Amino acid sequence: MKSFSEQIKEKPWKGWILFIGTVLFVFMLGLLASLIIERRSEAVFAYAPQNNFEGIESDNSKWGKNFPREYESYLETLDTSFRSKHNGSQTIDELQDNPRLVVLWAGYAFSKDYKQGRGHYYAIDDIYNTLRTGAPNDSVKSPMPSTCWTCKSPDVPRMMQKLSKDSANGIAEFYTGNWERWGKEVVNPIGCADCHDAKTMQLTITRPALIEAFERQGKDITKATHQEMRSLVCAQCHVEYYFDKHKHKDANYLTFPWDKGMTVEAAEAYYDSISFSDWTHSLSKTPMIKAQHPDYETFLLGTHAKRGVSCADCHMPYKSQGGVKFTDHHIQSPLNNVANSCQVCHREDAKMLMTDVYERQDKIKENVTILEDLLVKAHVEAKYAWDKGATEEQMKEILQDIRHAQWRWDYSVAAHGASFHASVEISRIVASGINLAHEARLKLSKLHGKMGIDETIAMPDISTKEKAQAYVGLNMDKLRSDKNEFLQKTVPQWKAKN
Amino acid sequence: MKSFSEQIKEKPWKGWILFIGTVLFVFMLGLLASLIIERRSEAVFAYAPQNNFEGIESDNSKWGKNFPREYESYLETLDTSFRSKHNGSQTIDELQDNPRLVVLWAGYAFSKDYKQGRGHYYAIDDIYNTLRTGAPNDSVKSPMPSTCWTCKSPDVPRMMQKLSKDSANGIAEFYTGNWERWGKEVVNPIGCADCHDAKTMQLTITRPALIEAFERQGKDITKATHQEMRSLVCAQCHVEYYFDKHKHKDANYLTFPWDKGMTVEAAEAYYDSISFSDWTHSLSKTPMIKAQHPDYETFLLGTHAKRGVSCADCHMPYKSQGGVKFTDHHIQSPLNNVANSCQVCHREDAKMLMTDVYERQDKIKENVTILEDLLVKAHVEAKYAWDKGATEEQMKEILQDIRHAQWRWDYSVAAHGASFHASVEISRIVASGINLAHEARLKLSKLHGKMGIDETIAMPDISTKEKAQAYVGLNMDKLRSDKNEFLQKTVPQWKAKN
Repeated sequence: MKSFSEQIKEKPWKGWILFIGTVLFVFMLGLLASLIIERRSEAVFAYAPQNNFEGIESDNSKWGKNFPREYESYLETLDTSFRSKHNGSQTIDELQDNPRLVVLWAGYAFSKDYKQGRGHYYAIDDIYNTLRTGAPNDSVKSPMPSTCWTCKSPDVPRMMQKLSKDSANGIAEFYTGNWERWGKEVVNPIGCADCHDAKTMQLTITRPALIEAFERQGKDITKATHQEMRSLVCAQCHVEYYFDKHKHKDANYLTFPWDKGMTVEAAEAYYDSISFSDWTHSLSKTPMIKAQHPDYETFLLGTHAKRGVSCADCHMPYKSQGGVKFTDHHIQSPLNNVANSCQVCHREDAKMLMTDVYERQDKIKENVTILEDLLVKAHVEAKYAWDKGATEEQMKEILQDIRHAQWRWDYSVAAHGASFHASVEISRIVASGINLAHEARLKLSKLHGKMGIDETIAMPDISTKEKAQAYVGLNMDKLRSDKNEFLQKTVPQWKAKN
Repeated sequence: MKSFSEQIKEKPWKGWILFIGTVLFVFMLGLLASLIIERRSEAVFAYAPQNNFEGIESDNSKWGKNFPREYESYLETLDTSFRSKHNGSQTIDELQDNPRLVVLWAGYAFSKDYKQGRGHYYAIDDIYNTLRTGAPNDSVKSPMPSTCWTCKSPDVPRMMQKLSKDSANGIAEFYTGNWERWGKEVVNPIGCADCHDAKTMQLTITRPALIEAFERQGKDITKATHQEMRSLVCAQCHVEYYFDKHKHKDANYLTFPWDKGMTVEAAEAYYDSISFSDWTHSLSKTPMIKAQHPDYETFLLGTHAKRGVSCADCHMPYKSQGGVKFTDHHIQSPLNNVANSCQVCHREDAKMLMTDVYERQDKIKENVTILEDLLVKAHVEAKYAWDKGATEEQMKEILQDIRHAQWRWDYSVAAHGASFHASVEISRIVASGINLAHEARLKLSKLHGKMGIDETIAMPDISTKEKAQAYVGLNMDKLRSDKNEFLQKTVPQWKAKN
């Protein structure tokens, strides 16, 4: 056999073929590389912060120009068809579904109106619409403090920054006054600037309450890892909180009750230690604690948190479009998106995974309903004792049991998805609530005996929301007509400013 | 360059080297193949059923000759050092650890003695030793029926087979008479023939109760898959059961209460529908149900069962020895063997996995303790009402609540590992038990009021097992001295027969 060089000597055209072939191949390789670089730069462009925002930009659409994929997926939160498919309406009227809630919250704004929120994009509209915020106008104030805006909009960190420029107590200043105070300022729904730094696009904490809670725990939130931040930006709002009225003169200072720990018992002990109550129950006269949504706290006690999963991993899973991988900003229940959330780790059939979730929820719901029923009875029986002349001394322990039992109930149900996030923990809390509610009723039964009350105490007819609201003494027609006027007159003025 | 054939022509010895080399290589290859075949046949030998057993062979050591690996790993269940490391003794005295149990089981054998079993190998010794079986001799009968042997030994299917040859009601015959009836027959601890067919070595169901329960559910147990059988052989014994006294004249016919379903509520409804009670509580006079160990039923409601995991997968995981893969017959808690059980699927640190288990158990235990405390009070308060002259009519609903509450408690704690196998389900059951126990106490409080009892009812001192046993009227010295005599005189006679 002849060597290649010998062959070339005989037939020189073979060398030319090789040469031209190589040139062509290298040229194609260059083209390919160029294509890859182009796609890459496209990706880099989409992520690079190219803006000239001054301070905190609360207009989400402006961010959308640089981050079309994230913004467009965020806009998908506008679609409530998933919900209406199930319920025939955009929101779930929780009081209508479960009129017991009206009695449990008697004397408190939640007994007027409690609907499931429609998601971040509707934050502003929903807070206008709820009867809880009342109908402020030039002469009437809202029953809610300005602090209620805190989680509704990127206008909040914008305003806090602005107020802090003028005053050392800018944050407290934001928390001061009634709800209507910031009606013309807070207009953009929850969005980009709530979680992102405009200069670096890094996740950032914009709400002081979380930073302050970390500080009091001796932790520095700026040391959090990126994966921790993928939960902590949510924990700015999805937590249990209260308004501290003693921290700064007239302010309702937003505070997390984490100083004794982050469990339901630790928060309870904290509230007890400062004798805090959100309101006094209008039937039982119990100094109540309203649980907000301790989502982050309960999430931390579940399996997913322990395995290092973040909120965003399931509620904002990664997505691909045109070769670009990005975080889906259509924040939603993972059950609407099992393929990209659960199934990334769990290689089981989607239907089976969903059944698992619903089974957990149903098992816990069963005892939640028992607990609600017991609490309604306890409030009514306590009212009966008061009406018959029970003394504060006689009622003290009973009210403490009711306070703690309802706190445990509310903690379990107010947290979004808690019975999935930490099923065993929530089930434990509900059981302890059942025990406490019964303790209250047992003490009431003994007190009634002692007071010579031996008739069976009639339970009110609370078979509908309307009946329950009438029972707790609410004038719903007035509340609704005032709200309509507010929506027609005041809201357009607030919106007009922009 | 010269071709190989040209080289051979020049130097013929090169060809010889190649030839001899090839011969050597092929020879070594043959050796290797032979070695592999030998190892394989060794494995096949170890698994092949080479026995000439007649009928059911209950002597485990005879099986061990053919299956040394399985038998030797089975013998490891003799080692209780893991347990004594934790508790300083081979068994846990549950009554000593938790004297409330004595009151909960007042009037029933479990209040005399309840120790954690030491595992399959000790099944016979443990049933000799427990005070529950009493001290039968020529003139005294055991308080327990012959049926109590059913899960203790491969002598049971052997005897059932033998009795069935002589009678159409052989199974019922086995269940007839008192415990001592089979003392000389049932002597080998739980072992090979309980789960294996000697001819085929396939898993097999040897206990009629499971086959019958399947039949009543319209299912054919012979259609079970191999993986299902890896749980069903355990489900022959690790289930809730009762003794049906109506099925066959004098027999205590072992029966599973599954006809209405396999949940705690379904079994409760079944027992209620036939007005079944295991005993009448000596304090509260409640017709009680003693939950046995509904391990299989609760396991079925957990995540592992839903993912197709069998009992054997975790409690008898595969093991390798000398190239042979076999099932580890050292049946034990997977927590003693995390690497071969949990970590086959869960790629997490062993310590973290164990912490997960303990956390679930602790959360449930917390409410179990509350429930036990409530049940003790309910029994004592019911006794008080009876003592003061309460009528059956007045007590009826109260006793029903106590019955159901204690059934739910017992179901949760009697099942081995239930609070891990199905944490959310068990937590649900415990919460419902707390509610029912409180309902009973509330009704008692009202009844006491109606009867003019207004003093606080003193709770007995049950701070130790001894005090609790004295309170429920047990003569422990007598029980123990009788038992010693039984162990010294009767047991040697029973054992001598063999």
